[in-house]
Amino acid sequence: MVIINLSGDIMEAIASAPGKTILFGEHSVVYKQPAIATAVNKRATISIKRSTNGVSTLRSDDLQFEAELDTENKSYNLIRGKPGIIRYILEALFSTHDHSPIDIKLSLNIPIGSGLGSSAAVTVATLAALHKFHGIKFNKHLIAKKAHIVERNVQGIASPLDTLVCTNGGMIYLSRDKMVSRFNLNFKSSFVIGYTSKRGNTGKMVRSVRALKNRNPRILGSIIKTMGQIVDEAKLAIISGNNQKIAELMNINQGLLDSIGVNTTELSRMVYSARRHGALGSKITGSGGGGSIIAFCPGKSNEVHDALNKYDNAIKIALSNEGVNLKYR
Amino acid sequence: MVIINLSGDIMEAIASAPGKTILFGEHSVVYKQPAIATAVNKRATISIKRSTNGVSTLRSDDLQFEAELDTENKSYNLIRGKPGIIRYILEALFSTHDHSPIDIKLSLNIPIGSGLGSSAAVTVATLAALHKFHGIKFNKHLIAKKAHIVERNVQGIASPLDTLVCTNGGMIYLSRDKMVSRFNLNFKSSFVIGYTSKRGNTGKMVRSVRALKNRNPRILGSIIKTMGQIVDEAKLAIISGNNQKIAELMNINQGLLDSIGVNTTELSRMVYSARRHGALGSKITGSGGGGSIIAFCPGKSNEVHDALNKYDNAIKIALSNEGVNLKYR
Repeated sequence: MVIINLSGDIMEAIASAPGKTILFGEHSVVYKQPAIATAVNKRATISIKRSTNGVSTLRSDDLQFEAELDTENKSYNLIRGKPGIIRYILEALFSTHDHSPIDIKLSLNIPIGSGLGSSAAVTVATLAALHKFHGIKFNKHLIAKKAHIVERNVQGIASPLDTLVCTNGGMIYLSRDKMVSRFNLNFKSSFVIGYTSKRGNTGKMVRSVRALKNRNPRILGSIIKTMGQIVDEAKLAIISGNNQKIAELMNINQGLLDSIGVNTTELSRMVYSARRHGALGSKITGSGGGGSIIAFCPGKSNEVHDALNKYDNAIKIALSNEGVNLKYR
Repeated sequence: MVIINLSGDIMEAIASAPGKTILFGEHSVVYKQPAIATAVNKRATISIKRSTNGVSTLRSDDLQFEAELDTENKSYNLIRGKPGIIRYILEALFSTHDHSPIDIKLSLNIPIGSGLGSSAAVTVATLAALHKFHGIKFNKHLIAKKAHIVERNVQGIASPLDTLVCTNGGMIYLSRDKMVSRFNLNFKSSFVIGYTSKRGNTGKMVRSVRALKNRNPRILGSIIKTMGQIVDEAKLAIISGNNQKIAELMNINQGLLDSIGVNTTELSRMVYSARRHGALGSKITGSGGGGSIIAFCPGKSNEVHDALNKYDNAIKIALSNEGVNLKYR
């Protein structure tokens, strides 16, 4: 799990964590309905080494990013790249690091802005690597909890579901009374994520749905309750690996997301393009208003990927049972 | 109402009837939910004269259509044009005409295939003109009933709502127990209809929704019930002329229509294009799977019309209180 030199010091701690996707329940989860999120086979990997020159650094070749870090003051000196993800790493360091100089390397094959939870994956991987580096005992429960706090501190609000999934892997079902169950995924899961360059603003979309609900309490109440019914039926369909049912429920859920006003021209175009090119089901994933769609396309992921990639961005993913893990190098 | 020559014979009977649009309740109306349809300011006009050469003819300059009719055998000899609408006229003649030779002229400014009920309007206008031509007493109730039978005979199935609206004008609200109420429309009603060259198949779409409902009874049951709630709230919004509410309910209803699988790439593109160009609300009108959308665009109907007309067909309409009527000429 860690590299130890001959004198017994940890030389390098490495941890990786998966990205996530929300399959069912976005928005309705805000109104005490259940939700389903799963880990995906795209990951963030963090390696931490002692620095040899007294300066803490963060470097990611994948993101073409480099910065010097002041971990005590959560500040940085940007050498190249966009600073987006650094805030999560600084916040994680602030919560767990002793501020001794370290060199951090980040590998990330989760596209930023794809809705695949790059920030949660990076946060979870950073925290796990830090605990290992300092020889602090931990378990997944602790990491998920700390990662949620990091995300909340950076973003103002954050869904605990993201960090739960990135820590535990597999499928997480969040019940109406906020109980969490984890399931292994056993169906062949060829998905394609399509995302536009226009990012969704989760807070804004949640507020807009609330306003629509305040103006139309009875109708929105019914729709949100129906979304919850879909989540429960989807849970059974996923556990039993019923592809047709999963897809059908995705398509129904997509219409309901459209009805509450979180769809856009671009998302709608991707949803229908995916279906036209062979996806069994497709829907917005996440809060909408920009952002991403997810298409379920057994046997057709290349076709769907290429179709979406023509006008927008696309990435093929599979669901994954692997949560955060530690590696020797 | 009719032209009478000096000897007292009727020389020409003219009647016109409006097209219709379904504002709310398509599909859910099949499951005993209410629906709202309104007459529009586009009409079919039928004139009937005695033929001078012993042959019955039908001619429409608008449709570039001409045929000789055998009214006894419901058959025809096509001279030019597409025969589509002729079946309704022959069926109406068969129900009400004495088969003496007549010349029929049809003016139609309702585009065929636009979902604006050209067949119902033509049927209603034909029946009203025929009754007048033969001096048969009639009222709107009788015309609506006969027109529904004509449509059913031609199509196999038909909604009585279409012929009711084309006969009575204004807004027709069909209740859960199939009671009909008529309301005058008092709000400034700038709408645009967008339609593709791909026509929807109502029977096919109704069957596909039924199959989806059989596979997902609980979820579809909830969605259909919610569609009914929307119709009831829309009725109040229309009566009180609350534009924002009408539009918001159209948008919610659109999502629910998408959720039951009757949306298409083209319809979705038109719905979002309309909103982007200033429509307050937009939705599929009719059974979907091809066919038409309706966009509510006070002050923006030119912009929305031009945007939709770029890739598809569009027509500006207003709602109308005028039902079938008879004119002297």
